[in-house]
Amino acid sequence: MVKRLKSGITAPKGFLAAGIHSGIKHTEQLDMALVTSDIPGPIAGVFTKNTIPAAPVILGRSNLKKGVGQALIINSGNANAFTGTDGLVHAKEMAQLVAKQLNIPKHRVFVGSTGVIGVPLPMPLVRKGISALTSKLRKPGHRDAAQAIMTTDTRPKTIAVQQRIGRKLVTIGGMAKGSGMIHPDMATMLAYLTTDAVIDQKMLQKMLRTVADQTFNCISIDGETSTNDTVLCLANGMAGNSTIRHTDSSYEQFQRLLHEACHYLAMEICRDGEGATKTIEVKITEAASHKAARQFAHTLATSPLVKTAIFGADPNWGRIVAALGRSGYPVRPERIVISFNNVTIVKDGSGLGTRIEHQVKKIMQRPTFTVCISLGMGAGAATKWTTDLTYDYIKINASYRS
Amino acid sequence: MVKRLKSGITAPKGFLAAGIHSGIKHTEQLDMALVTSDIPGPIAGVFTKNTIPAAPVILGRSNLKKGVGQALIINSGNANAFTGTDGLVHAKEMAQLVAKQLNIPKHRVFVGSTGVIGVPLPMPLVRKGISALTSKLRKPGHRDAAQAIMTTDTRPKTIAVQQRIGRKLVTIGGMAKGSGMIHPDMATMLAYLTTDAVIDQKMLQKMLRTVADQTFNCISIDGETSTNDTVLCLANGMAGNSTIRHTDSSYEQFQRLLHEACHYLAMEICRDGEGATKTIEVKITEAASHKAARQFAHTLATSPLVKTAIFGADPNWGRIVAALGRSGYPVRPERIVISFNNVTIVKDGSGLGTRIEHQVKKIMQRPTFTVCISLGMGAGAATKWTTDLTYDYIKINASYRS
Repeated sequence: MVKRLKSGITAPKGFLAAGIHSGIKHTEQLDMALVTSDIPGPIAGVFTKNTIPAAPVILGRSNLKKGVGQALIINSGNANAFTGTDGLVHAKEMAQLVAKQLNIPKHRVFVGSTGVIGVPLPMPLVRKGISALTSKLRKPGHRDAAQAIMTTDTRPKTIAVQQRIGRKLVTIGGMAKGSGMIHPDMATMLAYLTTDAVIDQKMLQKMLRTVADQTFNCISIDGETSTNDTVLCLANGMAGNSTIRHTDSSYEQFQRLLHEACHYLAMEICRDGEGATKTIEVKITEAASHKAARQFAHTLATSPLVKTAIFGADPNWGRIVAALGRSGYPVRPERIVISFNNVTIVKDGSGLGTRIEHQVKKIMQRPTFTVCISLGMGAGAATKWTTDLTYDYIKINASYRS
Repeated sequence: MVKRLKSGITAPKGFLAAGIHSGIKHTEQLDMALVTSDIPGPIAGVFTKNTIPAAPVILGRSNLKKGVGQALIINSGNANAFTGTDGLVHAKEMAQLVAKQLNIPKHRVFVGSTGVIGVPLPMPLVRKGISALTSKLRKPGHRDAAQAIMTTDTRPKTIAVQQRIGRKLVTIGGMAKGSGMIHPDMATMLAYLTTDAVIDQKMLQKMLRTVADQTFNCISIDGETSTNDTVLCLANGMAGNSTIRHTDSSYEQFQRLLHEACHYLAMEICRDGEGATKTIEVKITEAASHKAARQFAHTLATSPLVKTAIFGADPNWGRIVAALGRSGYPVRPERIVISFNNVTIVKDGSGLGTRIEHQVKKIMQRPTFTVCISLGMGAGAATKWTTDLTYDYIKINASYRS
């Protein structure tokens, strides 16, 4: 039985958080967050595959080799990306300052940044910010922390779930940011998970990779990520369960719990997608292979013509067919079945008429629905989530910095 | 000396054209075009790589094996795509009817269709249309023909160029349609070229492939094309030049002429891109390889964040850097040089400040400019053309069929 808690990243035992306005953002919005654990524990991470990673990503990858974490320091308003050697010096100084304040080794501090690319971090503000943060660490700090990592997000994204594993209650808390998810590959997505589970670092890393691939990477695009994308999970072991060190039933239980937290945050990012009015599940079945299925899902989930048709609630299935055909994998037109929720609109190589289209139009007016495409060629399957492409997306992105 | 003529697809000797309203389109707009040559001649073609090709593409590929053409019949308002076996029967009937009217073998007739996918062609209207067209064939018919192949295009796109090759005056005429070119891969692009040059069919095919790759395929996306994309070039040999059958100086002269015609039509398609307010040249130099250069150009030319920044005239070069980094090829951030026209905005791993950004903003307000990116890694180069992503793109595509 998974229980949802009204909390966030501080829900597990031993975690505190804070969020403040340091001045990195020119508005009054919060722009720095700190999350700490009373004791160190194993940490797992999944980072961007962008070949120009931001400084905090370079530092994080290096720190992850030791595999131990105790604090997360994140700023918004500045991505510390494409900032050269100074950028790395700044990221390291952030970790060092937090380490000093908390009296812990600096490799236990993980840095995250999100915002504009190519502008040096205003370090005097950052330094003052870190001092202010440490004095504000509290349990309810999860709210401010989740606020402080936002950029174009319209609302904070937090989750807390709890389940008994063996005889012990294990909790996962989480927060995420990300809003330019209409083309998620180019927007920074940050997600932080905390847990009091006792788990081996290698197991945690393996599990986070699997779960991230099924959740965050299904709203993001295979291998195409921003300069800053990061998912971290810190486990301080305070729940006292017997250590998860094999892929046994506790491993599976905990993985389901982690999946629930990550899936929720991923969907929250979708729902808050820049300018998005709808969240759509794209479900590919009976493809020749899983790889083909993923490519079909990817092409549909990123097709501007499909996404504008969804915005306009236009059951223009021809665009879906055209997108499938340009995905690079063979299809048999006569075997394609296209359904919106449970209503089939294309079958046996042709559309099923205007009466059906009228029904589908109504489904397309809902805030969320599923587009199912069966290809009749094998057992390959994939599911991705996407949003519609709207006027507001253009509005937000034509004047992001103005 | 290349001379521009105020004409179109009928400019070369022996060509006639017509355009009419048959009723396929529900508005009063022209929707069927016919182009004929007095005598047959070699024809070359380049077709979509979409794995669900439309019926006219299937027929055209088959007819091209014989390599002889004499007539082009094109309808707009209906793509005859995803229309099953009936679709192919309809395309064949169109060729047959034209052949009968002109008293020529049916394999010399090439069919083109563009418009909505998945709707059967209204054959009674098409049949009447073909009868009407043959009686209207004239030299000035190039205007109506270019009108009749339009879909969301806001204006016809025609060209006529002329040059002496040896002692003979050789002319190329052309017309094209295509407007959803903001993501050209999903919009139908049709381009038809006629010439009175005397040229071997194999040479013409080789040349058209080369020129299409440098022009239409640089506004389109490598291998990702609509169900109907077609470029055809019909040469009736009436100019009387000595046959072009080797890659000699006449070959090169004629290729330059063909390049000029195709480049102009490709740029016209860009300029008339759905909702586009700007045409941008993306120029990649000093990439590690040509392949890498093409991929960088492709990623930039299709990045919604880059294209919305261009719409907003926002010199947000961070988005260019992020797009380069997710292209899948390695880069050395410190070697990247980014310029808008002749103004360099990024060098030595960082931006060059707000004064420069102000200058670049002014360049970005122009209807056309070049983004040059030098990667400092080798001799790979590529150029692509794209448009900005605007409110009107959403408007056009959210309600295309409504």
